[in-house]
Amino acid sequence: MTDLAIIAAISIFTAGLTVSFGAIGPALGEGRAAAQALSAIAQQPDAASDLTRTLFVSLAMIESTAIYCFVVAMILIFANPFWNAALAVAQTTAGG
Amino acid sequence: MTDLAIIAAISIFTAGLTVSFGAIGPALGEGRAAAQALSAIAQQPDAASDLTRTLFVSLAMIESTAIYCFVVAMILIFANPFWNAALAVAQTTAGG
Amino acid sequence: MTDLAIIAAISIFTAGLTVSFGAIGPALGEGRAAAQALSAIAQQPDAASDLTRTLFVSLAMIESTAIYCFVVAMILIFANPFWNAALAVAQTTAGG
Amino acid sequence: MTDLAIIAAISIFTAGLTVSFGAIGPALGEGRAAAQALSAIAQQPDAASDLTRTLFVSLAMIESTAIYCFVVAMILIFANPFWNAALAVAQTTAGG
Amino acid sequence: MTDLAIIAAISIFTAGLTVSFGAIGPALGEGRAAAQALSAIAQQPDAASDLTRTLFVSLAMIESTAIYCFVVAMILIFANPFWNAALAVAQTTAGG
Amino acid sequence: MTDLAIIAAISIFTAGLTVSFGAIGPALGEGRAAAQALSAIAQQPDAASDLTRTLFVSLAMIESTAIYCFVVAMILIFANPFWNAALAVAQTTAGG
Amino acid sequence: MTDLAIIAAISIFTAGLTVSFGAIGPALGEGRAAAQALSAIAQQPDAASDLTRTLFVSLAMIESTAIYCFVVAMILIFANPFWNAALAVAQTTAGG
Amino acid sequence: MTDLAIIAAISIFTAGLTVSFGAIGPALGEGRAAAQALSAIAQQPDAASDLTRTLFVSLAMIESTAIYCFVVAMILIFANPFWNAALAVAQTTAGG
Amino acid sequence: MTDLAIIAAISIFTAGLTVSFGAIGPALGEGRAAAQALSAIAQQPDAASDLTRTLFVSLAMIESTAIYCFVVAMILIFANPFWNAALAVAQTTAGG
Amino acid sequence: MTDLAIIAAISIFTAGLTVSFGAIGPALGEGRAAAQALSAIAQQPDAASDLTRTLFVSLAMIESTAIYCFVVAMILIFANPFWNAALAVAQTTAGG
Amino acid sequence: MTDLAIIAAISIFTAGLTVSFGAIGPALGEGRAAAQALSAIAQQPDAASDLTRTLFVSLAMIESTAIYCFVVAMILIFANPFWNAALAVAQTTAGG
Amino acid sequence: MTDLAIIAAISIFTAGLTVSFGAIGPALGEGRAAAQALSAIAQQPDAASDLTRTLFVSLAMIESTAIYCFVVAMILIFANPFWNAALAVAQTTAGG
Amino acid sequence: MTDLAIIAAISIFTAGLTVSFGAIGPALGEGRAAAQALSAIAQQPDAASDLTRTLFVSLAMIESTAIYCFVVAMILIFANPFWNAALAVAQTTAGG
Amino acid sequence: MTDLAIIAAISIFTAGLTVSFGAIGPALGEGRAAAQALSAIAQQPDAASDLTRTLFVSLAMIESTAIYCFVVAMILIFANPFWNAALAVAQTTAGG
Repeated sequence: MTDLAIIAAISIFTAGLTVSFGAIGPALGEGRAAAQALSAIAQQPDAASDLTRTLFVSLAMIESTAIYCFVVAMILIFANPFWNAALAVAQTTAGG
Repeated sequence: MTDLAIIAAISIFTAGLTVSFGAIGPALGEGRAAAQALSAIAQQPDAASDLTRTLFVSLAMIESTAIYCFVVAMILIFANPFWNAALAVAQTTAGG
Repeated sequence: MTDLAIIAAISIFTAGLTVSFGAIGPALGEGRAAAQALSAIAQQPDAASDLTRTLFVSLAMIESTAIYCFVVAMILIFANPFWNAALAVAQTTAGG
Repeated sequence: MTDLAIIAAISIFTAGLTVSFGAIGPALGEGRAAAQALSAIAQQPDAASDLTRTLFVSLAMIESTAIYCFVVAMILIFANPFWNAALAVAQTTAGG
Repeated sequence: MTDLAIIAAISIFTAGLTVSFGAIGPALGEGRAAAQALSAIAQQPDAASDLTRTLFVSLAMIESTAIYCFVVAMILIFANPFWNAALAVAQTTAGG
Repeated sequence: MTDLAIIAAISIFTAGLTVSFGAIGPALGEGRAAAQALSAIAQQPDAASDLTRTLFVSLAMIESTAIYCFVVAMILIFANPFWNAALAVAQTTAGG
Repeated sequence: MTDLAIIAAISIFTAGLTVSFGAIGPALGEGRAAAQALSAIAQQPDAASDLTRTLFVSLAMIESTAIYCFVVAMILIFANPFWNAALAVAQTTAGG
Repeated sequence: MTDLAIIAAISIFTAGLTVSFGAIGPALGEGRAAAQALSAIAQQPDAASDLTRTLFVSLAMIESTAIYCFVVAMILIFANPFWNAALAVAQTTAGG
Repeated sequence: MTDLAIIAAISIFTAGLTVSFGAIGPALGEGRAAAQALSAIAQQPDAASDLTRTLFVSLAMIESTAIYCFVVAMILIFANPFWNAALAVAQTTAGG
Repeated sequence: MTDLAIIAAISIFTAGLTVSFGAIGPALGEGRAAAQALSAIAQQPDAASDLTRTLFVSLAMIESTAIYCFVVAMILIFANPFWNAALAVAQTTAGG
Repeated sequence: MTDLAIIAAISIFTAGLTVSFGAIGPALGEGRAAAQALSAIAQQPDAASDLTRTLFVSLAMIESTAIYCFVVAMILIFANPFWNAALAVAQTTAGG
Repeated sequence: MTDLAIIAAISIFTAGLTVSFGAIGPALGEGRAAAQALSAIAQQPDAASDLTRTLFVSLAMIESTAIYCFVVAMILIFANPFWNAALAVAQTTAGG
Repeated sequence: MTDLAIIAAISIFTAGLTVSFGAIGPALGEGRAAAQALSAIAQQPDAASDLTRTLFVSLAMIESTAIYCFVVAMILIFANPFWNAALAVAQTTAGG
Repeated sequence: MTDLAIIAAISIFTAGLTVSFGAIGPALGEGRAAAQALSAIAQQPDAASDLTRTLFVSLAMIESTAIYCFVVAMILIFANPFWNAALAVAQTTAGG
């Protein structure tokens, strides 16, 4: 099991883990906020525009934590500095 | 156990894990939002169009976290950069 | 334990895991949405058509996360690119 | 421990796991939907036909996730492509 | 530890696991549905026949997931294709 | 550690596990149903006979999942086909 | 570590596990049923005899799952067929 | 590590585990029943004798599951048939 | 690692585990019963003597499960029959 | 790793575990009882002396389970019979 | 497995873990705060500006804990002092 | 890995574990009691002195379980009898 | 695996763990406090200044526990005394 | 892996664990107390000074458990007696 394989395996596993666990919290939080927004609109239809604006700002804020996870997963798959360093080492060794 | 096998095994396992754990949060969150929407429509039928519009925007936002997971799983199965690199290495070794 | 056996074992295990864990969230979410729909129809029978339409759209959206899992499981069993690659390697080795 | 034994053991274990974990979510979800349906019928007996129709559609939709699991378990036991491939390999080896 | 012993051990363990975990969800779901049915009958005794009919259909649907598990457990104990294949192999080896 | 010992150990462990985990769900489900039945009788004493009949049918249905587990445990202890096969093999080997 | 020791150790561990996990569900279920019965008697003292009768039948039914566990534990300690078989083998070996 | 030591270690560990896990369920169940009894007496002081009688019968029934665990733990410590058998074997070996 | 050390280590660990896990259930159960008793006294001060008497009987009953655990822990530390047997064996060996 | 070190390590770990897990249940139980007592005093200030007396008796009873744990931890640290026996053995060996 | 590979693997895994677990708490907390804000605006539309200002300050405060996690993950990936030190050591060794 | 290192490592780990797990229960319990006290003062401001006195006695009682944990952790770090014994042994060995 | 690598790996892992687990509690606690503050402002807009002041003090207090975690994580990454000591040792060894 | 490295690794890990787990309970408890205080002020603005005083005393008491954890973590990092002893031993060995 070479070093490259270890780094690749850990990167793959972590990317999946990050994005899947990072989806649980935001999805539940957004579900709760949206549910309450619908209940609030039904209770006070006149304030619907105010409520939807507040809802969308809140959803964006909550979504941001999911996006952090997605960004980290993408970095780990496509722009992983450790992988690049290991590749460089491997090529140097092979070419040396 | 060659390096290729390790990367393949981890990729398969992670893809399944990602998409199955990534389904829990969104499904529960969407269930909650939809349930409240139905309750709100029953309470205020006149605001039904407003409510369904808000509901669908919210569902789309929540669904997005599930789609992140699905995308990562698909990348791991069909466009895995680590697998491609390992394949290239293996072919070089075999052909060298 | 050959590479083929490892990939087969992981694929089998992951396919089952994916589809069984992927069933928990959607089933609970759909149960919640359906329960609330029934309660809403009982409360406001006049809006039944509106409610059932919203319910079915929501159920379809929630079901989609379960279907992602089912699709990934089917891919892992019947169209697994890693398995195909490993099979090709094995046949090359055997035939070489 | 031959490759065949590994694949058989994993297939058996995964089939049981899939169908048993896949039963938890749907059973709870259906229980919730059915409970609310009974409560709704008691509250609004006149809408009983509408409620039972909606209930049965919902139960069928929730049951579908359990059936995905059952199907995957049956495939793993009786139509497992990995097992067939491993059997073919074993017979070739034995007959070669 | 022969292959036969591994397959037997896994089959025994999985059969027990399947039927015991598969009992949790349905039992809780049925308990909930039955509890609500009793509450509904007490609230609206005139709709008792309607309620018990709906209850029994629902219980049957929920029980179905437990029966899937029982069926899989029975197949694993008494009609296990992997065990039969392994037995055949063992007898061939012994008789060869 | 002979094969016989492995199968015996797994059978013992699984039998206990099956019957103890299989008791959790039904006991909680029956407790819930019975609790609601008592509450319903107190609320509507005139419907007591109807309620107790529905209760006992429901308890029997829930108990059935516990009985599946008990049956599987008894089969594993007293009519275990894998144990019988292993015993036969052992006697053949010893007698050969 | 002889086979006898393995079987003894597993039997001891499983007996304790079975009876202790098997006590959790029934105890909680009975606690719930009894609590509701007391509440119901306080609410409708005239139906006390009816309620206590229903309570005792329900408690007996719930207790049955605990008794299954106790029976299995006692069988494992005092009438364990695998232990008897292993003892017979050991004595044969020693006496042979 | 002799067989005697294994059996002793497992017996000690299981006895403690059994009695401690076996205390969780009954204690919570009894706490719930007692709490409701106190609430019921406060609500209907005239039925106090009826309530306390029902409470004590219920507590005894719930306590029975804890006593099963205590009995099994005591058997494992002071009347363990496997330990006795292992001691007899050890003495025979030593004396032979 | 001698047999004596194993038995001592397991006894120490089990004693602590038993008494600490055995404290969780009773403490929560007693807390619930006491909380409800205080609420009941506030609601019906005239029945205070009746309530405190019922409370103390209940607390004693719940405490009994904690005391079982404490007794088992004390037996394991100060009157452990397996330790005594192992000590006797060790002294015999040393003195022989 | 000598026997003395094993026993010391297990004693240290168990003492900490016992006292920390043994603090969870009582702290939550006491918190609940105290919370309800405060609520009860606010509701019925005239019964404050009765309520505080009942509260303190209950707190003492709940605290007793935490004290069992503290006592066991102190015994394991400062009066551990297994440690003393092992020390004696070690000194005998060293002095012999 | 060189030191560099270990540090790279741990850094990758920790970065993903940090950002995904760090998303759960803030997302749920923000969901709760936003939900209550929407409910409060519906109840008191005149205080909407006051409520949204308080909401945004609170969301920022809660988001800060998610940002701590994101910062730590970024440091671990792009400015990891341990990785730099290990790289320097590796280059020294290689160049020495 | 010398004995001293084992004992030091276990002592460090246990001290941290003890004080951190020992903080969960008391903090939650105190939070609950304090919350209810604040609610009670708001409801009955005239009984504020009575309530705060009861609150502080209760908090002190709950805090005591956290203090047990802190005391045990401090003993393990600064007055650990096992460490002292091991140090003495090590010095004797070194000086002998 | 050198000592330096072990310490680096543990420091990296612990820093991430600390800051991510340390974010869960404060985020949930702050979410709860903020939610209640919004509800309170909606109920009593005249006390808004008093409420926001109390809220911000409370948020700061809760945030402090998250900051402890962030501080410890930063110390572990950038000012780790164990790492410095190990580096010094390594340089001494290398230079010696 | 030298003794020094073990002690350093355990100290680092424990310090992080202690402070992060020690933050969960207090943060949740303080969140609850603060939430109730805000609710109480909204309900009884005249008692605000009394309520905030009680709140701050309670928060300080709850915070104390978090501070115990922080203190232990700081001791483990900067004033660890086991580390000092191990350093002394190492220097003696090196200098001897």
